[in-house]
Amino acid sequence: MKNIEVCLSPDLIGILDLKEKTVVVVDVLRATSCMAAGLANGVEHILPFDNVEDCQSMSSQGYITAGERNGRKIPGMDIGNSPFDYMDERMNGQKVATTTTNGTKSIHLSKNAQHIITGAFLNISSVARYVQSRSLPCIIVCAGWKGKVNLEDSLFAGNLIDLLTGTHMVSDDSSWLVYQAYKRVEKDPLVDHISWSEHAQRLAKFNIIKDIEFCSKRDVFDVVPEMNDGRLIKAVF
Amino acid sequence: MKNIEVCLSPDLIGILDLKEKTVVVVDVLRATSCMAAGLANGVEHILPFDNVEDCQSMSSQGYITAGERNGRKIPGMDIGNSPFDYMDERMNGQKVATTTTNGTKSIHLSKNAQHIITGAFLNISSVARYVQSRSLPCIIVCAGWKGKVNLEDSLFAGNLIDLLTGTHMVSDDSSWLVYQAYKRVEKDPLVDHISWSEHAQRLAKFNIIKDIEFCSKRDVFDVVPEMNDGRLIKAVF
Repeated sequence: MKNIEVCLSPDLIGILDLKEKTVVVVDVLRATSCMAAGLANGVEHILPFDNVEDCQSMSSQGYITAGERNGRKIPGMDIGNSPFDYMDERMNGQKVATTTTNGTKSIHLSKNAQHIITGAFLNISSVARYVQSRSLPCIIVCAGWKGKVNLEDSLFAGNLIDLLTGTHMVSDDSSWLVYQAYKRVEKDPLVDHISWSEHAQRLAKFNIIKDIEFCSKRDVFDVVPEMNDGRLIKAVF
Repeated sequence: MKNIEVCLSPDLIGILDLKEKTVVVVDVLRATSCMAAGLANGVEHILPFDNVEDCQSMSSQGYITAGERNGRKIPGMDIGNSPFDYMDERMNGQKVATTTTNGTKSIHLSKNAQHIITGAFLNISSVARYVQSRSLPCIIVCAGWKGKVNLEDSLFAGNLIDLLTGTHMVSDDSSWLVYQAYKRVEKDPLVDHISWSEHAQRLAKFNIIKDIEFCSKRDVFDVVPEMNDGRLIKAVF
């Protein structure tokens, strides 16, 4: 059995040893849901950036630019941070440069890991199969919201731990916590809890309830976005 | 109904607005368990210090010095960080200066709050009554372990939220998380989960299973340690 640890906020990542681990970065609302949607809908690769300027400059190299800050599309970017933006047929074959409030930061903070993938409810079962295929201990990094622990990423972590039963086991207090919370609510519709979350309430103001409902669905896609040479591509496993 | 928020690690406290709130600091293993034990057993007041030197210097002013780092008594201190140290009849009427790895730090970080008290399973029902008596929103600050989220403080937070049903309500994602985890395991003996925690495993090496068992008991004491002019005294409420 391999260990699972959970990092509940990117601000706490410094405590963890990522070496020789498979890291799953999760930002359910909405960065990693978009990544799954994009690669499943023919996007060639996605370049994650921490800052807006670097991201925007990729436009000159033929990239579609995608960006969000505080839940809103960044002015001047081609698309925002809705999975529906990535599911447009015009995205087929495109390269995307993206920056988001929490998700892209967590990916960069995970750079010491052996494998870095992104997960969301939209591709959770495929993520579990990927983790099992790599046979390494697993760390789930929750993107949170500006350092704050969030509900939807914690719930994803608990759900993923549940799917890894048999090959991986809860091995720190944070993974215990999210697993117990998940098991307590596992029979409820995900969307009921995710809609209640602080971040969903922030997003609801911007009229994107459709996004929240979509990001609360499991296994719409079977792709796993994997970091490879600085880019997120469809993992082969 | 008043709000409840939970801060899962002192490293995340900067995000919260503590003003006009009642803050409950919890470090079940073992700082806040000791504080309850001390004040219940006749200690006059407890002065919490962040650093060892300042704490130790209080010896010349007639204080009993108490200190722990990494789970072990600090050499030269009068007592360590076991609740049994505080339950000796020689502690009656004494003043104590203390410093611990996580607990005293969390108390100082909470200084902007309207009221600061410390909680543990040993006095959890009294803590709930205190919070209700103040009629303010409540923030539970979990001391964790060197910034890492821990099981026993999270479980305390979930249990306290449960006791506050009727006057206070879960109002952020962290409080949701600890509440769900607590409700999932509420029928199990507390000690079973707390013994499994990372910190209990660290302490077990030092042969203090007796402390872990004791700190897992509810409502052995009815005192509430409250910060008043830099000192923890028995709250009147």
